[in-house]
Amino acid sequence: MKLSTKIIVFLGIALGCTIEINAQNQLHNYVDPMIGSEGDGRVFIGPSCPYGMVKPSPDCTVSPNSGWLPMPKEVTGFSQVHVSGTGGGPKYGNIQIMPFSGTLDKLDQTSHRVEENVKLGYYQTVFKENQIKTEITTAEKASFYRITYPKNTSKDLKIDPGFFLGENPEPNAREAQQFVGSQIEIVSDTEVRGYSRIRGGWNNGRAYTVYFWAVFDLPIAKYVTYKDGKFYSNQSAQFDSGKKTAALLSFGNDGKQEVNVKIGISFLSELKAKNNIEVEIPHWNFNIVLASLENKWEQLLSRIKLSEDTSIDYKKMFYTGLYHTMIMPVNRTGENPLWTNDEPYYDDFYCIWDTFRSSSPLITLVDPKRQVEIVNAMLNIYKREGYLPEGRSGNDNGRTQGGSNAETVIADAFVKNLKGIDYELALKAMLKDAEVSPGGNAEKEGRGGLNEYLKLGYIPYGIDRAGNRTIDYAYNDYNIATVAKGLNHTEIYKRYIKQADYWQNLWRSDYENNGSKGFIMPKDAAGNWLDEVVFGESKIQKPTFRYTPTITESPWYVCHWCVYFYEGTSWEYSLSIPHDIPEVVRKSGGDLAFQKRLDTFFDAKLYDVSNEPSFLAPTMYHWIGKPSLSSDRIKEIITHNFNTSRNGLPGNDDSGAMSSWLAFHMMGLYPNAGQPYYLLNTPLIKETTLALESGKNFKISTKKWSTKNKYIKAAFLNGKPFNQAWILHDDIVKGGELILEMDSKPSAWGTTILPPTK
Amino acid sequence: MKLSTKIIVFLGIALGCTIEINAQNQLHNYVDPMIGSEGDGRVFIGPSCPYGMVKPSPDCTVSPNSGWLPMPKEVTGFSQVHVSGTGGGPKYGNIQIMPFSGTLDKLDQTSHRVEENVKLGYYQTVFKENQIKTEITTAEKASFYRITYPKNTSKDLKIDPGFFLGENPEPNAREAQQFVGSQIEIVSDTEVRGYSRIRGGWNNGRAYTVYFWAVFDLPIAKYVTYKDGKFYSNQSAQFDSGKKTAALLSFGNDGKQEVNVKIGISFLSELKAKNNIEVEIPHWNFNIVLASLENKWEQLLSRIKLSEDTSIDYKKMFYTGLYHTMIMPVNRTGENPLWTNDEPYYDDFYCIWDTFRSSSPLITLVDPKRQVEIVNAMLNIYKREGYLPEGRSGNDNGRTQGGSNAETVIADAFVKNLKGIDYELALKAMLKDAEVSPGGNAEKEGRGGLNEYLKLGYIPYGIDRAGNRTIDYAYNDYNIATVAKGLNHTEIYKRYIKQADYWQNLWRSDYENNGSKGFIMPKDAAGNWLDEVVFGESKIQKPTFRYTPTITESPWYVCHWCVYFYEGTSWEYSLSIPHDIPEVVRKSGGDLAFQKRLDTFFDAKLYDVSNEPSFLAPTMYHWIGKPSLSSDRIKEIITHNFNTSRNGLPGNDDSGAMSSWLAFHMMGLYPNAGQPYYLLNTPLIKETTLALESGKNFKISTKKWSTKNKYIKAAFLNGKPFNQAWILHDDIVKGGELILEMDSKPSAWGTTILPPTK
Repeated sequence: MKLSTKIIVFLGIALGCTIEINAQNQLHNYVDPMIGSEGDGRVFIGPSCPYGMVKPSPDCTVSPNSGWLPMPKEVTGFSQVHVSGTGGGPKYGNIQIMPFSGTLDKLDQTSHRVEENVKLGYYQTVFKENQIKTEITTAEKASFYRITYPKNTSKDLKIDPGFFLGENPEPNAREAQQFVGSQIEIVSDTEVRGYSRIRGGWNNGRAYTVYFWAVFDLPIAKYVTYKDGKFYSNQSAQFDSGKKTAALLSFGNDGKQEVNVKIGISFLSELKAKNNIEVEIPHWNFNIVLASLENKWEQLLSRIKLSEDTSIDYKKMFYTGLYHTMIMPVNRTGENPLWTNDEPYYDDFYCIWDTFRSSSPLITLVDPKRQVEIVNAMLNIYKREGYLPEGRSGNDNGRTQGGSNAETVIADAFVKNLKGIDYELALKAMLKDAEVSPGGNAEKEGRGGLNEYLKLGYIPYGIDRAGNRTIDYAYNDYNIATVAKGLNHTEIYKRYIKQADYWQNLWRSDYENNGSKGFIMPKDAAGNWLDEVVFGESKIQKPTFRYTPTITESPWYVCHWCVYFYEGTSWEYSLSIPHDIPEVVRKSGGDLAFQKRLDTFFDAKLYDVSNEPSFLAPTMYHWIGKPSLSSDRIKEIITHNFNTSRNGLPGNDDSGAMSSWLAFHMMGLYPNAGQPYYLLNTPLIKETTLALESGKNFKISTKKWSTKNKYIKAAFLNGKPFNQAWILHDDIVKGGELILEMDSKPSAWGTTILPPTK
Repeated sequence: MKLSTKIIVFLGIALGCTIEINAQNQLHNYVDPMIGSEGDGRVFIGPSCPYGMVKPSPDCTVSPNSGWLPMPKEVTGFSQVHVSGTGGGPKYGNIQIMPFSGTLDKLDQTSHRVEENVKLGYYQTVFKENQIKTEITTAEKASFYRITYPKNTSKDLKIDPGFFLGENPEPNAREAQQFVGSQIEIVSDTEVRGYSRIRGGWNNGRAYTVYFWAVFDLPIAKYVTYKDGKFYSNQSAQFDSGKKTAALLSFGNDGKQEVNVKIGISFLSELKAKNNIEVEIPHWNFNIVLASLENKWEQLLSRIKLSEDTSIDYKKMFYTGLYHTMIMPVNRTGENPLWTNDEPYYDDFYCIWDTFRSSSPLITLVDPKRQVEIVNAMLNIYKREGYLPEGRSGNDNGRTQGGSNAETVIADAFVKNLKGIDYELALKAMLKDAEVSPGGNAEKEGRGGLNEYLKLGYIPYGIDRAGNRTIDYAYNDYNIATVAKGLNHTEIYKRYIKQADYWQNLWRSDYENNGSKGFIMPKDAAGNWLDEVVFGESKIQKPTFRYTPTITESPWYVCHWCVYFYEGTSWEYSLSIPHDIPEVVRKSGGDLAFQKRLDTFFDAKLYDVSNEPSFLAPTMYHWIGKPSLSSDRIKEIITHNFNTSRNGLPGNDDSGAMSSWLAFHMMGLYPNAGQPYYLLNTPLIKETTLALESGKNFKISTKKWSTKNKYIKAAFLNGKPFNQAWILHDDIVKGGELILEMDSKPSAWGTTILPPTK
């Protein structure tokens, strides 16, 4: 398909103008991809379309998860596929290119940045060594590079499909990506094709293949190809023999200084990658690609409008939060090498354990059609591969951390009435998790320890992550009960609503710690509580370890993912019962004792702001009728941990999990995923307007909102008094207005009609 | 790499002469690939190197497992990848080509054969409709076609990567292959590249991709490409968009009538496929390719020499049996898209359930180095994917039928002292099967029902294939005990030698049938024997079914693979205890009762010659000191079921399982896989000489051998009296001679020193 040059030029001018005119008002300008890039955030900083498959970005050594590290760290090149905000071993970093200037005899062209500029959809840097400027933008499946070389220097470019992130010399090293194969072909004087095949990484996935087709707007004057340590000046192709391949290209010294490069990416084939360029970027105009990307984001971001007088910092924090929530999972529809391409296919659920709490609900609120697609993609994975994904990356399920949390995502879609999902099929998929043990594949999918869980009503100490798996499964069982009930499967409902109480089987009611009573604690298969737990399997030495609710350490020989609570303590997980907080309150000794428990949790720094298990905790005061305390905590947490700096996220963003937590709370809403309502808190934004799928709006506005007036005195939904500190999803999607009247003191508002429970 | 034309011509002449001179004496001429091609045998009839990756052959409709069906069935084309002797849903049938003559506007070029000639490494047919002659031979990874068109007709060729065997309109139909994607590119006037990506099939495997590179010795004069029902005359490539693609090529009407086509195949990439041609067939000489293939087979077949006076029929049956044993599994070393290519990789274990009994032992005897490679390939699969293969095809494990029989293969290698295998790693792999349930993946790998097996000592009725799984696992546990003992892992040995008795837990000792007593029968989880078994899961209706040891049927709503005994009856499986036949004898009521039991088994046709579970049964008279009766049964079975005709195999050859059973018995040997000895029977061959790896020979020769003298009267090993009807593998590999003195009556030979047991 070829657009005539005239049309392209016209389009370019037209779009160019639009940008010019609207630039200052556009919301995407508030997105700062650098927020959360340093410290623990690990966000992807390069250009990406919403849920975009291609994510070009610099790679600084092979170790960082997003590829990028701050200056003065050196850059090895720019690869086309990345993830955002992840922890553990890196994934992707495929099809690296690197501009350089010199001779075609050295694969390593590492350079240092003298400047770097990043905005939504745009990355730019200049290298110290050679003054080459690289600018990057991207379409969904093809990236675009504008490289400007200094005058009269050799315009050279490395294309390296042998590169990938997280390389480890140890074969099969845990969490490390491993090289399988790569290939490269100089197709013509303006085209190069090839692929990179890599396995492993954090999710220990099977091999995946990233195909590419690169096109240049200048003819290649000279090239060498590379394989396994050697350069070949007379071979235009290096076939895959399980060795690394690459090419060094030179576009010569003369003529224009700028080389434009389009890199189509595909998970099917090189020709499909070429087609992706033809469909998405049938021209050579960098600005059109950028404008199209900006436009896509603008459409999405503008579904939530903040009052004009919102501070720039808050606008940046909020829209960047929205942005980070919508760069993953990745839309690979039409790029599925495993089954048909006639249905939605998403990859990089990384992981649902992280994203089910607030990312999925935020997507549901902003873009419900997208969430339907994502849920259907999850169901398609179940249909073809047998289990729903928990983590999934590189076209392979893996790995599980706690629950089978896809069930929460499904229940959330169900209670929020998302249409276009086969919920009977979804229930089958949920039941597969809940009833068929994944056996030796428990790290890949399903519920590890399921047999014990079903037999004993809890997972006994000794099985990996027994503590958090038990309570997560109980919640997942509640999710199943929810869907079963709604579909009138009474027998299934009865069974699962009973299992939803299984967390209680690990509740050690007389156990005291830091002044609070009752904790989820280790129990053996015979039913004995364990104060001292045995680690290791030696038959002679039986070293023990005192287990307490605050414990975060474990002996050196117990792996991170084999602990009793994954990435958390009993203090955190004992509160992580999203479907039955009233019972936790009761078991904790009633409202006052629970309030003290929460206060201790936050004040004694037992709360971990950097991870997801306690995402709901700051709002839990709601269940004892004290939403004002929730608002205090939330404000405190945001103030101390979130900002617009590069360190502006307190933990791994985990595909936008941390960011969506922030965005929700800034609006004064927080979902309890899998349940049909949001908790209401003091918004950080004076007025927020949600554009709904129906075309209507829902406005959350405040009266007398000020720094001082930080408590909700009264609320009105569509003009009527609204005395509860939570609102149903249905009430929002109907459209209308929620007015929150603010005051400087806590009031009686929200103290009597408590949030729904099991 | 290019050989000079001179060298090629010289090589051609040289090899041509060699063939000329030796043709009549060469053993490969006794191979008739058509034996077992009709009826149930389902052998692959096209050319194949030993363990050859490429197996070109005609496809007659999309349903037959080997592609081929007898005339007058129509031929849709010739595809490059097939399997041999399999049952169930077909696999492969990729990269189909079809010569035709006409206009380039029709994808279907189905034709009928007027003649067909097949010999080892060579296939030839002439089509009725257009008189086109097609000849095929092959290298390991590239096939070679010589197509002769009638004078002055259009020399046309279809290349159809959209074709595959076992297509089913129902998405995800069980055992059906499903289309994922395909691609085609006309690269130059003599080259076409592309691939076919297919999933499913009998083993329900993930998608696999077969890449090709086709080269012609005439330039393409004209072409059209095809995608999804439409032809394109101006597009040289059709990229993968999840639709079927193809190309119709014309080499014109003029000039020479012959078109030669080389098709390189790869599981890595098209360029690797091209490289496979360059490495294997750097010329255009059909005869050199054929001669090279013949030579490879000759090297292997000549390791067993039969006495000159052996009848042509017996020579054909024997060498064809050897041939069929060595065309699968398939050597894909260097073609592994999943991990490294630096280690042995074999695919199409299809399935080990079929081949562990006699195919693996025969390969071990003829070509121990190859067996080491195969076992290492199995261990590499365990290392990278977590479980040993049971069935494996298209780069994916699946599916299991009975035991985790890779363990028997490993034990067999261990007891036969195969060097170059890490047996500590192998033991770990075996223990993974035996100790870690595959959960929801029980059809893919590992031991389904493992938890119950370990808890109860048997698999209770209601779990799929509970009967045969229990007794197969008990044998596999014996295999583990064998290796553990040899490696001095005493604790492991003790545990597993105990579990090796678990078959006894399903032995219902008072149950009588057809005059015999004691059978493996269904038992529920509470320990009750079941006379009537409930099928189905309805809560209201509880239809029952009377279970008897002869039952082969099951209610229509119970699937083939969910029955109590897979492909067999209790009569068969109750005898299938290869490690403890003396205990079966004792439980059956002693020697006489057991003899009667075996007699009834064969005479009342309870023995199923067409399947593997009873492979050892004819030899079981050995354990009651009556090897003469074993010999009688073997002779009877071979006479009535095996011959040189197209119907010459009584059941699915199952990758050579049936053929290896025959070849062993013709030599007078039969292995008890996993144990270090062979049973000795009356050979059908007067004298057999085995060339051993050490360079020595082992000869099995007879004295007074005749139709009448069908019993062994005495035996001498290296001149010394040898009074046992079994011989250790060690005794064979030392080299030497076993002389069997024959007589017309059974003697005392072999009646006292019974074969080894647990």
